[in-house]
Amino acid sequence: MRDFSNDHSWMSINTATVRKAQGKEVPLLDILDACARHQIRAISPWRDQVAAAGLQAVSRAVRSHGLALSGYCRGGMFTAVDDEGLARARDDNRRAVDEACELNAACLVLVVGGLPGALEGKAGYHDLAHARGQVTEGIGQLLEYARERKMPIAIEPLHPMYAADRACINTLEQALDVCDLLDPAGTGDIGVAVDLYHVWWDPKLQAQIERAGKRRLLAFHVCDWLTPTTDLLNDRGMMGDGVIEIPKVRAWVESQGFSGYSEVEIFSSRWWSRDTDDILRTCVERHRTVV
Amino acid sequence: MRDFSNDHSWMSINTATVRKAQGKEVPLLDILDACARHQIRAISPWRDQVAAAGLQAVSRAVRSHGLALSGYCRGGMFTAVDDEGLARARDDNRRAVDEACELNAACLVLVVGGLPGALEGKAGYHDLAHARGQVTEGIGQLLEYARERKMPIAIEPLHPMYAADRACINTLEQALDVCDLLDPAGTGDIGVAVDLYHVWWDPKLQAQIERAGKRRLLAFHVCDWLTPTTDLLNDRGMMGDGVIEIPKVRAWVESQGFSGYSEVEIFSSRWWSRDTDDILRTCVERHRTVV
Repeated sequence: MRDFSNDHSWMSINTATVRKAQGKEVPLLDILDACARHQIRAISPWRDQVAAAGLQAVSRAVRSHGLALSGYCRGGMFTAVDDEGLARARDDNRRAVDEACELNAACLVLVVGGLPGALEGKAGYHDLAHARGQVTEGIGQLLEYARERKMPIAIEPLHPMYAADRACINTLEQALDVCDLLDPAGTGDIGVAVDLYHVWWDPKLQAQIERAGKRRLLAFHVCDWLTPTTDLLNDRGMMGDGVIEIPKVRAWVESQGFSGYSEVEIFSSRWWSRDTDDILRTCVERHRTVV
Repeated sequence: MRDFSNDHSWMSINTATVRKAQGKEVPLLDILDACARHQIRAISPWRDQVAAAGLQAVSRAVRSHGLALSGYCRGGMFTAVDDEGLARARDDNRRAVDEACELNAACLVLVVGGLPGALEGKAGYHDLAHARGQVTEGIGQLLEYARERKMPIAIEPLHPMYAADRACINTLEQALDVCDLLDPAGTGDIGVAVDLYHVWWDPKLQAQIERAGKRRLLAFHVCDWLTPTTDLLNDRGMMGDGVIEIPKVRAWVESQGFSGYSEVEIFSSRWWSRDTDDILRTCVERHRTVV
């Protein structure tokens, strides 16, 4: 396993982690400047942040700072109540691939969607198996497009508490089943993003990481699970503040040959109340000591 | 599949559902009276409620009302930081079996425990695999005792969002693995409690229900998953108010030969603000229409 204690060259900052500071939105270009100040050499930005700043402006800033993208957040949301919705999702995902290419991302991360409409409070249908079918089909279509553009796509299994409204792929096993179905040869064009927040609890985690192997392990995200957790979305913990055995799982991932970034992705109202430098300084320190 | 539309003879009320009404605790004996008023013929009471009312008093009331117990909540919490803690858990679980026998419960439901201390906010250790080992050992010991007393024990896999602090058995597959390990002959002395709130999201749900079969299906709990869910513990939905496909799963369970009660278990600050008769009336109506 790589030694992270001396530097943070393998830390990436998912820009959601500093999306807000002192309670206010932070523009993406300011986040990039802050990352540069802290000698952070990789990020994973969100599409809405990129859109707000302008793709070309972000692309220039990424290049001028010499930043790598450990991933691009996010494609997905493949489910819909009708064909028009499915077509919109298809087109939007193609644009996400194009943007990921422009930014030279390591992969496009997919949050696949749950029951359509559920995120807005009213599910258009309740048939979870149907949603999963739409997701598999949507990923299959996107894979063709992404292959042409040479952009790997990474299915991120989300914690089962998001099955209804955000993603109906909820375990690494399920994500790998989809990968194997769509890419039986294991080309590396499609794989998984292993986010510890979503998968840490899984009794099959180690076995499924071994099943994934190097070719399917496209991204590795870290944060922590707090006890108690007071909000389903925005109470994720800073590494070291919760119960996840981060180094143990990192060892499993690296023993498969994964040699990419540990991407820090923390949705936390608590941390978003602090200032950007404070958040980043803490990420760096924890990356050295508990990741 | 049984037709529930004409009566509610196969509905059981888990007494947590009416633990509070209009914001105030309701004594268990009052809950039993209320169930009788609504022609409810089965309940599943909680140990703390029974202790507050007195075991003998509850036992008499159960008999005089002619109530069946679809289960007894709950044994478990097997994990501990030291041998004394493990011994305390063992003794307490034996008492739970004795109480379940006194009340003639169909089974003792087990919420197996997570990382010890996590529920109080500070986990005594973080090794989830170790917790799972303690749980398997604890259930194994309890099974011997429960067999002597002829009380079936039912492992309830809890939603993965409770893995840290309430139960580190989080899928039906994992629960059945423990059952198979401890009872390879499939005697029916140990099985599972299938609570839809905890397992509805699982892509392997149907397959694992089939694997369980009649002998391992000891209890079936219903409520609903709301979108959004605003609290990890006390925002469960009344059947029909959320996204769970209850009849679909009930059909799977019954096709294995399960012919017991559908036990309504709703932890909900929202419902606990209403009055007992209102809550029970709604349970009966939903049991007839959407379960």
